[in-house]
Amino acid sequence: MVYINKNYTNLTENYLFSEIARKISEYSARNPGTDIIKMGIGDVTLPLCDEAIRAMTRAVSEMGKAETFHGYGPEQGYDFLRQKIRSYYADRKIQLDEDEIFVSDGAKSDLGNILDIFGKENRVLIPDPVYPVYVDTNIMDGRSISFADADRENNFLPMPNENTHAELIYICSPNNPTGAVYSRSQLKSWVDFALQNGSVILFDAAYESFVSSPDLPRSIYEIEGAKYCAVEFCSLSKTAGFTGTRCGYTIVPKSLVFDKYRLNKLWLRRQTTKFNGVSYIVQRGAEAVFGETGQKQIKANIDYYRENAKLITSALDKLGIYYTGGKNSPYIWMECPDGMNSWQFFDCLLSGANVVGTPGSGFGKNGEGFFRLTAFSTNEKTAEAMERLSGLLA
Amino acid sequence: MVYINKNYTNLTENYLFSEIARKISEYSARNPGTDIIKMGIGDVTLPLCDEAIRAMTRAVSEMGKAETFHGYGPEQGYDFLRQKIRSYYADRKIQLDEDEIFVSDGAKSDLGNILDIFGKENRVLIPDPVYPVYVDTNIMDGRSISFADADRENNFLPMPNENTHAELIYICSPNNPTGAVYSRSQLKSWVDFALQNGSVILFDAAYESFVSSPDLPRSIYEIEGAKYCAVEFCSLSKTAGFTGTRCGYTIVPKSLVFDKYRLNKLWLRRQTTKFNGVSYIVQRGAEAVFGETGQKQIKANIDYYRENAKLITSALDKLGIYYTGGKNSPYIWMECPDGMNSWQFFDCLLSGANVVGTPGSGFGKNGEGFFRLTAFSTNEKTAEAMERLSGLLA
Repeated sequence: MVYINKNYTNLTENYLFSEIARKISEYSARNPGTDIIKMGIGDVTLPLCDEAIRAMTRAVSEMGKAETFHGYGPEQGYDFLRQKIRSYYADRKIQLDEDEIFVSDGAKSDLGNILDIFGKENRVLIPDPVYPVYVDTNIMDGRSISFADADRENNFLPMPNENTHAELIYICSPNNPTGAVYSRSQLKSWVDFALQNGSVILFDAAYESFVSSPDLPRSIYEIEGAKYCAVEFCSLSKTAGFTGTRCGYTIVPKSLVFDKYRLNKLWLRRQTTKFNGVSYIVQRGAEAVFGETGQKQIKANIDYYRENAKLITSALDKLGIYYTGGKNSPYIWMECPDGMNSWQFFDCLLSGANVVGTPGSGFGKNGEGFFRLTAFSTNEKTAEAMERLSGLLA
Repeated sequence: MVYINKNYTNLTENYLFSEIARKISEYSARNPGTDIIKMGIGDVTLPLCDEAIRAMTRAVSEMGKAETFHGYGPEQGYDFLRQKIRSYYADRKIQLDEDEIFVSDGAKSDLGNILDIFGKENRVLIPDPVYPVYVDTNIMDGRSISFADADRENNFLPMPNENTHAELIYICSPNNPTGAVYSRSQLKSWVDFALQNGSVILFDAAYESFVSSPDLPRSIYEIEGAKYCAVEFCSLSKTAGFTGTRCGYTIVPKSLVFDKYRLNKLWLRRQTTKFNGVSYIVQRGAEAVFGETGQKQIKANIDYYRENAKLITSALDKLGIYYTGGKNSPYIWMECPDGMNSWQFFDCLLSGANVVGTPGSGFGKNGEGFFRLTAFSTNEKTAEAMERLSGLLA
């Protein structure tokens, strides 16, 4: 009889977004015609930039002619795209070799699949609250997980201490869901910890392009020593609106060597064995995003979302509500007012202002009493939502 | 110190295609200007059909406008595509529910990733010779592998016997590399074996569209009982030339229940956790392939490759050389003439006829003494290659 992977039976179902959807639909049924503004889900709303559209239109056309048709491409991504990503890092004074860059269909896939190359014996450290994928992918492998508590006391940026013991350390900065961003010196402490303990940092940089303060790091490789202890995951999803187009990349420096094994070589083996590369069409779109005009266009989009974030943080500032994020992140993580718990505030905001956000408790125990708003709506709707929220809480 | 997955150290490097490339480049250097015809690699050469190009051009344009932009889609694939795949099976009298169909970026990914949901204790049975991915993905997990010997005696279609003991059974039909296709009664024996032993058949149907004989099965679900023991992997790579466009699908019937766990639910959990769906643009292209006009267009392409296969098999028939495949498969698996081993024949064919194929020994021990030719070249080049081969061996 076939044995299933019993670790799957230890997974708990996360009903967060289905519960939100249920509450919205029930409310709408009771209050037909209500204009509900959704600021809960972390998906973009602006269309792809012109440069990406132009490049993909061209690429589709190439696929229709024998002379320019593309069959199997390299599993790690085409050189034309990896060169662009290399320059993107070089512009920030980070030198990478092309074969340290792996193109994929998105950071979510790579964050899950990277675990293939690590033993089950590794102890895992994950911040709480957190993007649920880090936890679930490790439960699937049966690894032992501990949590780094993020809370108001540490401004949702937990630091290593004498009780920190882990070989695999997840860091997401700018963070999902809290929007908090580590400073250089804070990240340096994590890098030093990893180097001293022979740990690997799995650094999720999916929101790096929202960092506008020049003193905040956008890549872990801005920190000395990181190339000896960190893998970086990045994505065009939030940077360039590729959530439905699907393209990301992962940096695995060749200097990452553990017990004489090179992680770069192991990851290459994993990808060439279980992956066949990203669509040629999509890679051409991604290449265009990294061009001069493409960068200008996506920066305009990011600025648009930043405007939303500012509308939200200004409203919260005026109300005197504690929050993290919003300055260098599309996420605003606010404390629920009047001692409400996360779901109480969800209900209050839905019925009192017809605005939807995400209850923080859905991201871990330290999320209780907090609430996530996202900057991915339109300027108009965000402004309207903040007016309603201010009216409700004033 | 980080533990790596030590199973990776048990992988052997497969130098097959790099060795072929090295030999070709050395030969070309010694014989500049030689017109070498490549019939080694299993990649398509015809461009995508017009319907797919039209659909993807439209989809790219949709992504450029806010009103028609698509962000995150369902991890399992859009309904519009899954409905088409459902009809594709229904046309062959196979009834599937939409949630038994999972769209992915290709069969290679799914064949590797499906192992996530199975325990390491399962014993694995893999035919020899074989597509190397089945073996390597199981070595990565540390599973115990045994081989089903495919040879001239069983026409490269091994059957279960009293020594067959395995919980996970790989079957690829039409086969890569041998082109051999199981009959309905042969597949029935495997299904019966799996049902009796509580095994799962992982059925790789990537080449199903090349089956033209109506008495040969194109899906394992044509066999009674298969929905209780088989997962089927399929791909648009060879069917519609999507090798560089990337789209496949996997069928996990809800009736697959082992030790009270439903594989469909486990796979859904795997995919929603470690995957974020296929590009909207690509899924629109795939949808078009399943339309009436799309089907006509890709069938014309497959017929073109079939013409090549016929040129090859006719030449071998005339020479009296034993082979499998070619009739219902893009692969022709020929015995090396004059008792040559696989690499001797490779060298002989390269230097004597300037034709490149793939040495069978690269696919497993039973491949020694055999050689793979593919039907994916142009008609002209295939005809020319067969003339040269006939001249050399006559």
